[in-house]
Amino acid sequence: MKFVTGTTETGRLELAELKSGTYFGKEVTVHGAVYANRPMGGGLTFLTLRKKDGTLQCVCDGSVDVSDIPEESAVIVTGLLQAEERAPGGIEIHVQSVQVLSRPAEPMPVPVNKWKLSLNLDTELSLRPVILRHLKKRSVFQIQAGLGRAFREYLSGQGFTEIHTPKIVHAGAEGGSNIFRLEYFTRKAFLGQSPQFYKQMMVGVYERVYEVAPVFRAEKHSTPRHLNEYTSMDFEMGYIQSFYDIIEMESGYLRYAMELLKKDYAADLQRLGITLPDVEHIPVVSFKEAKELAAERYHRPIRDPYDLEPEEEQNIGRYFKEVYGADFVFVTHYPVKKRPFYAMDDPENPKYTLSFDLLFRGMEVTTGGQRIHDYAQQVEKMLSKGMHPEEFESYLMIHKHGMPPHGGLGIGLERLTMKLCGLDNVRDACLFPRDLSRLEP
Amino acid sequence: MKFVTGTTETGRLELAELKSGTYFGKEVTVHGAVYANRPMGGGLTFLTLRKKDGTLQCVCDGSVDVSDIPEESAVIVTGLLQAEERAPGGIEIHVQSVQVLSRPAEPMPVPVNKWKLSLNLDTELSLRPVILRHLKKRSVFQIQAGLGRAFREYLSGQGFTEIHTPKIVHAGAEGGSNIFRLEYFTRKAFLGQSPQFYKQMMVGVYERVYEVAPVFRAEKHSTPRHLNEYTSMDFEMGYIQSFYDIIEMESGYLRYAMELLKKDYAADLQRLGITLPDVEHIPVVSFKEAKELAAERYHRPIRDPYDLEPEEEQNIGRYFKEVYGADFVFVTHYPVKKRPFYAMDDPENPKYTLSFDLLFRGMEVTTGGQRIHDYAQQVEKMLSKGMHPEEFESYLMIHKHGMPPHGGLGIGLERLTMKLCGLDNVRDACLFPRDLSRLEP
Repeated sequence: MKFVTGTTETGRLELAELKSGTYFGKEVTVHGAVYANRPMGGGLTFLTLRKKDGTLQCVCDGSVDVSDIPEESAVIVTGLLQAEERAPGGIEIHVQSVQVLSRPAEPMPVPVNKWKLSLNLDTELSLRPVILRHLKKRSVFQIQAGLGRAFREYLSGQGFTEIHTPKIVHAGAEGGSNIFRLEYFTRKAFLGQSPQFYKQMMVGVYERVYEVAPVFRAEKHSTPRHLNEYTSMDFEMGYIQSFYDIIEMESGYLRYAMELLKKDYAADLQRLGITLPDVEHIPVVSFKEAKELAAERYHRPIRDPYDLEPEEEQNIGRYFKEVYGADFVFVTHYPVKKRPFYAMDDPENPKYTLSFDLLFRGMEVTTGGQRIHDYAQQVEKMLSKGMHPEEFESYLMIHKHGMPPHGGLGIGLERLTMKLCGLDNVRDACLFPRDLSRLEP
Repeated sequence: MKFVTGTTETGRLELAELKSGTYFGKEVTVHGAVYANRPMGGGLTFLTLRKKDGTLQCVCDGSVDVSDIPEESAVIVTGLLQAEERAPGGIEIHVQSVQVLSRPAEPMPVPVNKWKLSLNLDTELSLRPVILRHLKKRSVFQIQAGLGRAFREYLSGQGFTEIHTPKIVHAGAEGGSNIFRLEYFTRKAFLGQSPQFYKQMMVGVYERVYEVAPVFRAEKHSTPRHLNEYTSMDFEMGYIQSFYDIIEMESGYLRYAMELLKKDYAADLQRLGITLPDVEHIPVVSFKEAKELAAERYHRPIRDPYDLEPEEEQNIGRYFKEVYGADFVFVTHYPVKKRPFYAMDDPENPKYTLSFDLLFRGMEVTTGGQRIHDYAQQVEKMLSKGMHPEEFESYLMIHKHGMPPHGGLGIGLERLTMKLCGLDNVRDACLFPRDLSRLEP
């Protein structure tokens, strides 16, 4: 009988190993996709390989013919590794042999090996399965992976437990019409707008929980900041002293994330020309005060004291950038009418709630706050909003049988990525976006 | 202006800190839910707190009256910490004061503070929001969190990049009728049965990718091993030498996961009485041979050489347990008719594919294999299966423009948890299961 061993030997090296110096002057073997095949004259050809963490220059002299190896072929190259200052990453391989593993049937529809790609968004989105091979596009989603990894690592270190909650639900957490309907066998069901109910339930179990998962919003907006499906990084924590504990937890995450990006994603940051934002000095301001400050500075009268227009949101971001040099600002105490039924009212001013948004360069990237934990209070608030508590029996079970003071938040991963990478459209920060007109690829 | 600090001081200690010895004989403050409130006579009361990582015994003498604090209240307790061999975790607090943060409106519907809960499954599932507070129930999902964490940690270390792919799709990856239909604005859409197409696309970008996310199967089975929504741990890797590279990667994950559980989840393993399976010696056997071995040993003639009945699967598991002491077995070379259109045929015997399942104690917990990377070959196979390649334009784009040899797998997180924890029903390994009859909670 054959048994597994748990490891695989390929004898092929990755970029970090090649750059380590250990193999300089030695014969090495690597695999990769032919990113560029450029005859330089005099029988010399530069074969650039795209590897998972960068590119590698391979130099072929007249003794190795690579003229029939098209770009985007998958190859294994063997040759002598040399330090070479002028090459990307400071190394190159003098090729002795090339083995072709696979060949494309057709050339790429656009040259992804150019430094800059100028495509209109719709064309790009249709070509995403192959366009993402472009180094800068690829770096955006490496950074996104880093932001997700930082979220989990930081929260695990803070005693949070990861949970997986259902996306097919019998009722939405956010209410309203922005919900997708589903045929669930013989019944009607919906797609979850948020893991809100479930993460609250799990606070009663683990005190602190998080989930990174898709959420679905049937919003009929077609804007550069809306997606109909996005990745929500949610956490919920019990035994809070106030909703400021949630704010501090998020700012702890942001600090951890920026350090992780600096440490492990430096090449991607450099490729995208990203300067990381200051996360050490994030101002905290009330909704009311933020509106007033922006209105005064930019001479734009407040039309509705209990609402926030997108332009006001941008102006608040602008104000804190200009006055405090801040990229992030926590805006607290949102009005009751802007918050769902589970938000806890501010006992000092019941027109407002113990909640907050985090704005990043003028855009909301997080909504959070303290939730109602008392059963009678939650039922009363539902009734005051015209809701029917009997439809929420399984949710209210946790309030009925005891819940600690708690709260949490949801971070839109794509929006955070978008703003961090300085992108203009959230679709550029989502691998395969879903919007009003797009279901493919 | 107020600024965030990134930290919160509560002055409250967690179990690990309490057990460290640093605070023995000192006054400490802790929070928790009242798991049990048991008057012992003579004015003495044992107040057991449920904390996120275990329970804590608090002893109240006559000077502190806790008789009016019901179970499942959230409290803050201050008192003297003492080492006490007979108490859970070897420590107890001699209570000086108790502050009640919140009280339940009603007692629990069942006593979750009992060591064993005997409820029928349907009752339990309806009560899940509060039943999960039971220590043993909770441990199942701690272990599940550990399995997910191990998956990401191990694969990150192996150079994999995390991706987030859409769950609302225009076509299913697995085909067939087991797919949920959705109203997507004015169009028809579906819920993803697997991230298959997307993870393959991303192999062309990052070489190695993984995703932990929900998948949806509209299967009309009502069995102890089927869920209509489950968490799939998927990976896909390029430049493989054969599909055995995928098998080795999975066995590397299993080794890493068992070590992590031993190290960080020992209390949960002990609470559930789990003996970890041997992952160092996993046999690999072909589909054909596995069927023959089981048929011979258990005197059950093979009815269809190209199909595998659930009882045969169980017998294969039984065979390898009895003969090799193995809990896991990789069964390779599944018949073409049992595998989807993207599976690569075995060039040595085109009735079979370069694919595998992993059986764990007689149940399939993983399906994987090598995929077709050549465009012409993929189109031909689609046609041979009666499919229309023009309907898969965005998927075939990657084959057309070049893909390395690649393959991958999907692990059902709930099934892996179920078998590891020795549970009889996969619903016991899913927080809020979705099945034919259940959409709530």
